Amino acid sequence: MLPSGFKFSGVACGIKASGKKDIALITSDVPAVAAGVYTQNVVRAASIDWNRQITPTDHLSAIVVNSGNANACTGEEGFRNNQQMAFQTAGAVECTSGQVCIMSTGVIGHQLPMDCVSKGIVQASRELGAGSQDFESASEAILTTDKGTKTAFRSFEFEGETIRLAGMAKGAGMIGPNMATMLGIVVTDASLTPPVAQDILKRVADQSFNCISVEGHTSTNDSLVLMANGQSPAPMKHWKAIQAFTENLTELCVELATQIPADGEGASHLISIKVSGAENDQDADTICRSVAMSNLVKTAIAGADPNWGRITSAAGLTSVTFKPEHLCLAINGCSIFEKGQPLAFDEKQLSQSMSDEFETLIEIRIGSGPGEASHWTSDLNEAYVKFNSLYTT
Amino acid sequence: MLPSGFKFSGVACGIKASGKKDIALITSDVPAVAAGVYTQNVVRAASIDWNRQITPTDHLSAIVVNSGNANACTGEEGFRNNQQMAFQTAGAVECTSGQVCIMSTGVIGHQLPMDCVSKGIVQASRELGAGSQDFESASEAILTTDKGTKTAFRSFEFEGETIRLAGMAKGAGMIGPNMATMLGIVVTDASLTPPVAQDILKRVADQSFNCISVEGHTSTNDSLVLMANGQSPAPMKHWKAIQAFTENLTELCVELATQIPADGEGASHLISIKVSGAENDQDADTICRSVAMSNLVKTAIAGADPNWGRITSAAGLTSVTFKPEHLCLAINGCSIFEKGQPLAFDEKQLSQSMSDEFETLIEIRIGSGPGEASHWTSDLNEAYVKFNSLYTT
Repeated sequence: MLPSGFKFSGVACGIKASGKKDIALITSDVPAVAAGVYTQNVVRAASIDWNRQITPTDHLSAIVVNSGNANACTGEEGFRNNQQMAFQTAGAVECTSGQVCIMSTGVIGHQLPMDCVSKGIVQASRELGAGSQDFESASEAILTTDKGTKTAFRSFEFEGETIRLAGMAKGAGMIGPNMATMLGIVVTDASLTPPVAQDILKRVADQSFNCISVEGHTSTNDSLVLMANGQSPAPMKHWKAIQAFTENLTELCVELATQIPADGEGASHLISIKVSGAENDQDADTICRSVAMSNLVKTAIAGADPNWGRITSAAGLTSVTFKPEHLCLAINGCSIFEKGQPLAFDEKQLSQSMSDEFETLIEIRIGSGPGEASHWTSDLNEAYVKFNSLYTT
Repeated sequence: MLPSGFKFSGVACGIKASGKKDIALITSDVPAVAAGVYTQNVVRAASIDWNRQITPTDHLSAIVVNSGNANACTGEEGFRNNQQMAFQTAGAVECTSGQVCIMSTGVIGHQLPMDCVSKGIVQASRELGAGSQDFESASEAILTTDKGTKTAFRSFEFEGETIRLAGMAKGAGMIGPNMATMLGIVVTDASLTPPVAQDILKRVADQSFNCISVEGHTSTNDSLVLMANGQSPAPMKHWKAIQAFTENLTELCVELATQIPADGEGASHLISIKVSGAENDQDADTICRSVAMSNLVKTAIAGADPNWGRITSAAGLTSVTFKPEHLCLAINGCSIFEKGQPLAFDEKQLSQSMSDEFETLIEIRIGSGPGEASHWTSDLNEAYVKFNSLYTT
């Protein structure tokens, strides 16, 4: 079951030449609390600046998403088009433009075809519905090169009342022609205040969407918005309720986030990297990212090749210092390097397990500190390169 | 002509299964001043720790290089083997082990076959010669997957006397199976003191070898060593002589360094990135590297695809802030984005020039500050991925 008091729709308005759905609309029956986290890229889409002014808020009415065009690097005209989307959506769902969040995803540097977009918004407002098929339809309309929709759901009870969360995301995975643009939307009927919603969302994003990568190229459009309309009667004043909500939101966002590197033409492995024993979590995270960003690690895993020197050297190349004689490494549970010494291991057997399993688990220990971190990324194979060599032209 | 007072040799001792040359020896007839710069990777080869203790010095006699095995992540046994290489070389060329620099390059995590190495060092010491063919032979013996040798030469006159410089490098380029391990050796007959040599080399490395990348994976073995034996009678006490030497060394090192990303199976483009208008050089360098590290930029250029949104977004994703409305971009001299606004340009014509030219020039301006930087990298195509997916197994 979906959270109470939300409606969804997804329509095709002609932005995508393929004729696939490209406008999604999500509305709350009552003005909702909303929080958002956005790309840190200096070069960002018009929609990012717009949303930053709006969230956190206690009266968001709608989120409108177009796919197929990022409306980024489009100058003044791009800002005007973004504004027009907000006004048209506000007109269609009867609210003010300041109650509308906007997300765009797709190719950079092209102006939006506003004729199509305007018609699409009107049509989407007419098709709004509260059923699973409506949610699914909206989830489809936010995709670009994704293989399929990415959704996740959670519910929990507090003092006898049910709170529901439903999330959708898009991410181009291994074939990230739109810069692996990531969009995430989570709706819930929980009662939250804007500062609490913003604080929870920031912390959850750091443990989920901020721990995934495809090629580490931060998009101009990355956005994650949480909408909480308070339609569940569950009381949320108690810290235990907030804690339960945060745990459920974290689980939901990790489930959504890991679908991104796992998806996409060409991605033949999801790579999970766990670093422990660092002085603090930040250091562990830095090492996780260095391993995740290494094309040499990613190509080795695509080939089911336990070429582990690429991993130990990637762990060592950051600004984080550690004693090489404390370094340990295991791949898929097989210990390979222990306290700075190479171990004898069955290369063929390990290669077979890397070939058989979709997920490759890399565990690195750099000392005995309490710091730890996780990261999920995709492997790098020929299909990725082929796809990304020819995109705009 | 080569600098006076140096001898060179390259032999095959059996480290490489292919039977190609894998031991290089370079000696100075008199103890030479030497300076070195080495990998910053925490996980580093035994040879790196050894060389760090030796340079800068005023009495280096020999540099011995083995290719085909990095002697990194090899624990205690690796350190002992490295030491043995120094002692054996010292015995063969009649000096002490502390007068021998060692470089290793190749696969990580395997122990050196010391029987082969020992025989190779003795043979190399017997074949030392001062001719161009000897220099060429040593240049060959340091290679791994390089397509061919990488050498560069300079000479200049000061107060009627000639000073010569000769350099060799190896780097696996686009196909970086040994982590794009970079080795560079420059010999000169100039008279320098150890601190001056070290200072010059550090500054020159920052403008040459530290401005190239293949996949940005810092190796366990990167080394650049300068040997100056003072056999040219040119007086070097005057600052103008030091300045002329530095300029020649910089030119030589840039020429050597850019051969690395240009080389390698699969590298179909050398990408030159120039960033200007930053507040300082450091900021410009940060943006250069972000563009150079982007798989999306590198695949687009492999496909001669002027998908410029990938470049502007890569420029924006670092910690360096700038005003997006000041951002300008040109590819191969064609202006595409000017002060935050997309320009109309002939996509087909630009794609054709990217396809025709081996070098693609990306020029980015982020403001009106004095900071600027350059970086050279290779594109990313299917051949790279194919090669790197199957290396050790």
